[in-house]
Amino acid sequence: MPSPTLQSNLLRVLAGEALDPPPVWLMRQAGRYLPEYRALRAKAGGFLQFCYAPELAAEATLQPVRRFDLDAAILFSDILVVPDGLGARVDFREGEGPVLEPTGAKDVDRLSLRRMRAHLAPVYETVARVRASLPPSKALIGFAGAPWTVACYMAEGKTSRDFAAPKAWLWRDPASFQALIDLLVEATIEHLAAQIEAGADCVQLFDTWAGILPDAEFRRYAIAPIARIAAGLKRRHSGTRIIGFPRGAGAMLEEYARKTGVDAVGLDYGIPLEAGRAVQARLPVQGNLDPVLLLAGGTAMIDRIAEIRRAFSAGPHIFNLGHGILPPTPPEHFAALVDAVRGAAVP
Amino acid sequence: MPSPTLQSNLLRVLAGEALDPPPVWLMRQAGRYLPEYRALRAKAGGFLQFCYAPELAAEATLQPVRRFDLDAAILFSDILVVPDGLGARVDFREGEGPVLEPTGAKDVDRLSLRRMRAHLAPVYETVARVRASLPPSKALIGFAGAPWTVACYMAEGKTSRDFAAPKAWLWRDPASFQALIDLLVEATIEHLAAQIEAGADCVQLFDTWAGILPDAEFRRYAIAPIARIAAGLKRRHSGTRIIGFPRGAGAMLEEYARKTGVDAVGLDYGIPLEAGRAVQARLPVQGNLDPVLLLAGGTAMIDRIAEIRRAFSAGPHIFNLGHGILPPTPPEHFAALVDAVRGAAVP
Repeated sequence: MPSPTLQSNLLRVLAGEALDPPPVWLMRQAGRYLPEYRALRAKAGGFLQFCYAPELAAEATLQPVRRFDLDAAILFSDILVVPDGLGARVDFREGEGPVLEPTGAKDVDRLSLRRMRAHLAPVYETVARVRASLPPSKALIGFAGAPWTVACYMAEGKTSRDFAAPKAWLWRDPASFQALIDLLVEATIEHLAAQIEAGADCVQLFDTWAGILPDAEFRRYAIAPIARIAAGLKRRHSGTRIIGFPRGAGAMLEEYARKTGVDAVGLDYGIPLEAGRAVQARLPVQGNLDPVLLLAGGTAMIDRIAEIRRAFSAGPHIFNLGHGILPPTPPEHFAALVDAVRGAAVP
Repeated sequence: MPSPTLQSNLLRVLAGEALDPPPVWLMRQAGRYLPEYRALRAKAGGFLQFCYAPELAAEATLQPVRRFDLDAAILFSDILVVPDGLGARVDFREGEGPVLEPTGAKDVDRLSLRRMRAHLAPVYETVARVRASLPPSKALIGFAGAPWTVACYMAEGKTSRDFAAPKAWLWRDPASFQALIDLLVEATIEHLAAQIEAGADCVQLFDTWAGILPDAEFRRYAIAPIARIAAGLKRRHSGTRIIGFPRGAGAMLEEYARKTGVDAVGLDYGIPLEAGRAVQARLPVQGNLDPVLLLAGGTAMIDRIAEIRRAFSAGPHIFNLGHGILPPTPPEHFAALVDAVRGAAVP
């Protein structure tokens, strides 16, 4: 019997239950592919202003849940609010993505956790508003970027294919790079704890660039910091469930699942279903439809949804994409996905 | 005893011998990081003109072998000479990378293998010139892009993070996409056979974007076409050795090694050393230093080189990077790498 406090299907699965149909939400479900989001965005001014406007951000969070009757809302925000709060200069330029003043070894001391706590108050207010508007059957997911991924953007100053700046830094001066990671571990615990205190039911850690780390560095920067965050967060809030999403982990995924202490693992679309099932023997899994297949739609999408459901139906599984929704995705494809995920049990 | 015809260390390892120190060459060793390359490039006009000028391309091929006394030369060319030869419009713009007129379902019939054979004659002349200039102890590696990666550029028209165009195509209209892949399989066999006939000692297939395919599509587009190319090429030239490099294969690597029929597998830098050793139990491996670590240099690089040598010293191993050299890499770091690879046997 599930605990009576586990009122949402998402939390039941995170606690280890296998549900058929599985709960469903999609990464970047609050976003540009939705006309109602674009209308809201047009009112908001800059992207960070949007993230820091509780009324607008709460509405963006709720839009997809309302339209598609999803099992979970995920806070509308961005992983770069943490460096922005710490005092790194973050800017979002239309069509260009984030631009940051690059952080180097000498800048780490200037970053301030205290500044972050005050600066991100509107984010926590957004969480509280959303939780108040959602029925108990819908979970609210808080989130943060994993320290490695946030450090990538801070060191490089923008997105990149190679992220040579953070990688060259960690090899040339591992001590100062570790100081940045240590600060981000603390900041992430603070930021997630504040979201939980404001009403988030569980949290996800996005490690978008985990896959560009060789094995030794994956252990040091994509596993160890997550283990510290999971332990730190559970010391403060013992019942918190954490979903880890180490994108591109490949052959390191099993070790990530075994050593980080997360409660569930998000599978990117490159993880073969058999490898995902091996992880599921240990922990609940989430994923992993290719976002381009959602964009393409049609029978290929419906067939793959059935295949994913079949692969994971014997254990705890949350249906999701294997990466975020692409902006040109037709919303009707999302509706068709939800229908297919909630359709008759797969044979 | 190695066959007396196997005069180069590279070919001996491809035939299954374990050598200590291992032979060494680096992906993109002929390139912009070298001042002598930049001087040559300035004389050449456009990038494709450079690829089609046998004297200049042969010189670019030989430059790094001369400077660093490497065990192998790799033909200076580009994977997009195949679509260019087939009649897709390919252009290289300074600082922007390749731009192609996007190929769609209706364009496949217009591509011509016969046109390609004639168009790429200067490439085969380059191979012959290089082979004539190299001592028998140095191997000459020919290469081609794998059909999936070449199809990515053809369908998308440029590089991309998601390659939504080829992926949406393969899901919406698998028959016409398969027709493109089939044509590229034939073109690749032709192109590699012509390089071997001109004097290449072995060949490498670069599947740069293999890692963006989910499991079923990885089997269909990153394994099956390579298996057909390997079989087709060996029917024509039975002794040919093929190195397959499926970048980002992650958990699909073992299946790639087992099912493609390649003679050796290139490991990207994200493949953990233990996973690489598992592949090495079956086939020679090549790799896999992170190119950013070559860029960073210093003791971190030297230590990792020793670790890679140790991991693979019991079996056949070719030392290489796990992806191409980055343009800002100091050539002295390359020289230090070669010294470290050829240094005393690792304990």
